[in-house]
Amino acid sequence: MDNKQVLLRKRPVGQPSTDDFEIVSAPLPPMEAGLVLRRTIYLSLDPYMRGRMSDGPSYATPVALGQPMVGHTVSQVLDSRNPAFKPGDFVAGYDGWQEFGCSTGAGLRVLDSSVAPISTAVGTLGMPGMTAYVGLLDIGQPKPGETVVVSAASGAVGSVVGQIARIKGCRAVGVAGSPAKCDYVAKDLGFDDCVSYKSPDFLDQLRAACPQGIDVYFENVGGLVFEAVLRLLNVNARIPLCGLIADYNVTATPPGPNLRPLLVKRALIKGFIVSDHNDRLDAFLRECTTWVREGRIKYREDIVEGLEQAPAAFLRLFSGENFGKLLVRVSADPTR
Amino acid sequence: MDNKQVLLRKRPVGQPSTDDFEIVSAPLPPMEAGLVLRRTIYLSLDPYMRGRMSDGPSYATPVALGQPMVGHTVSQVLDSRNPAFKPGDFVAGYDGWQEFGCSTGAGLRVLDSSVAPISTAVGTLGMPGMTAYVGLLDIGQPKPGETVVVSAASGAVGSVVGQIARIKGCRAVGVAGSPAKCDYVAKDLGFDDCVSYKSPDFLDQLRAACPQGIDVYFENVGGLVFEAVLRLLNVNARIPLCGLIADYNVTATPPGPNLRPLLVKRALIKGFIVSDHNDRLDAFLRECTTWVREGRIKYREDIVEGLEQAPAAFLRLFSGENFGKLLVRVSADPTR
Repeated sequence: MDNKQVLLRKRPVGQPSTDDFEIVSAPLPPMEAGLVLRRTIYLSLDPYMRGRMSDGPSYATPVALGQPMVGHTVSQVLDSRNPAFKPGDFVAGYDGWQEFGCSTGAGLRVLDSSVAPISTAVGTLGMPGMTAYVGLLDIGQPKPGETVVVSAASGAVGSVVGQIARIKGCRAVGVAGSPAKCDYVAKDLGFDDCVSYKSPDFLDQLRAACPQGIDVYFENVGGLVFEAVLRLLNVNARIPLCGLIADYNVTATPPGPNLRPLLVKRALIKGFIVSDHNDRLDAFLRECTTWVREGRIKYREDIVEGLEQAPAAFLRLFSGENFGKLLVRVSADPTR
Repeated sequence: MDNKQVLLRKRPVGQPSTDDFEIVSAPLPPMEAGLVLRRTIYLSLDPYMRGRMSDGPSYATPVALGQPMVGHTVSQVLDSRNPAFKPGDFVAGYDGWQEFGCSTGAGLRVLDSSVAPISTAVGTLGMPGMTAYVGLLDIGQPKPGETVVVSAASGAVGSVVGQIARIKGCRAVGVAGSPAKCDYVAKDLGFDDCVSYKSPDFLDQLRAACPQGIDVYFENVGGLVFEAVLRLLNVNARIPLCGLIADYNVTATPPGPNLRPLLVKRALIKGFIVSDHNDRLDAFLRECTTWVREGRIKYREDIVEGLEQAPAAFLRLFSGENFGKLLVRVSADPTR
């Protein structure tokens, strides 16, 4: 059985292109004692992958040239020599951009498809949801009545941030990149308001959406959204710094915002990486699963079909063309 | 008796000049029940005063045009109708740029001149020392063996930051603006190292002075020092943001550093204003007074003579010409 894989062919300078990837077929290794073989159903595409394509300083080792791209996956076990897994089990893992994964099973988590759709294990109930949960609650520490602003509000992380903020009694204001996304965030996800950063009067709109100022800003993008938010901060504001997608493809580091508002407002910025917070996984899964089942956290998926579409789909993350959690359906989902 | 005062005459745009001030003589109000009259001995000149000259958004109300400039003072009581104070007492207060202060005594603190020189009550044992204490210990939270970097290291705040860092078992590295200041910081104050930001190879020197990277950066200045520090941060670094003197006189807000290192290194920046931390005053005075008496915290004063010299002396804070805690001796110090 051959294993289709997407390899990193070369390191992009600036904006990545589909030329940076190569699709190959590799033979699967033979099954041996202790191994678990599974077929990928969903591959999650996430902004952090851009970092893994570069070999500059980062918090994680880059993908080696000629190796499969990394990524979170939902899979079904085909064959198992490990008693913890049996054929037919759905598992969440980190198998990367390929049709099959084969390992001892370390790091795999068995999913109960009756609790929530299995695709959520790489979205709202996976790394993006956990990023929202720990960044907002542990760093942002929102209090009832405060105003929480989140950028990339229709995305996999931002959508969860705003909905948890509402659950915690806050005013949730999203920033997104189009009227359609803003409509979705305000109407379908139930944020109090959502403004488009592409509006010519974005700052005025954001100010109007935050009449009491901004207490928590969950930062996913950097750039002009950050600068506008800095003008509206309240005293003792908190800024969980999750991502700076506006900067990920630049070749020269752009300057950042002037930090004087942080001083005047005694504000806090804290960068964080979700993988540092694994001690919070159980609390996250317990709470967010309940919220999803109760309909208090909704989500939207943007699914492309076929592993070979992964490179082109990935690029849409940076143009803002995706709308919802971006997934590749690598093989049929037997639960749908 | 006339009271010489320095008034704010106009609001500077950019760099202040002596023309922004006006020296006048005003009559003292008559003594009434409850009042305390005192003669200013020392007036402290500090960078925050630049903020009070402007009417832009800040954490404190600006000085009104035609009113005396604000400032911390050490004074001697001349006459008192308040039983808490008696003639001859030395007091620390906030009487501003004038020869005499007269009020109910609210906010005055009686000094014991046998414990430490009274001038320290506006320096190492006053607001600048307390700024160093709460910023370093409460926000920076240095652990033994960590590396603490502080900018404006020969100044009133920075000199205390590095010496407390040493007391706490850290490597203390200063950044200052001249070889003479660096010599003083390293040799007299006992920092482990001090580098000049004016050196052409400043980044390389800073890197060499911090072979284990930077765990805490006490930020007083902004600009290029901040940018260099961001390249050397360790994971989970903390940055107490105390001041951005490099920006105080600009007319257009300069961009700040790119914040990607904060994300990658999970770093924290927290702006703070010392007056929010008055609950720490007793602990600060107890600990720092002991350290000063034990000779573990040293200080240097840069004293100019006469209230009328205050405007010109104040400007030296922004050119880096002052060397040590900048004080105006408004009247003779009877303890020296």
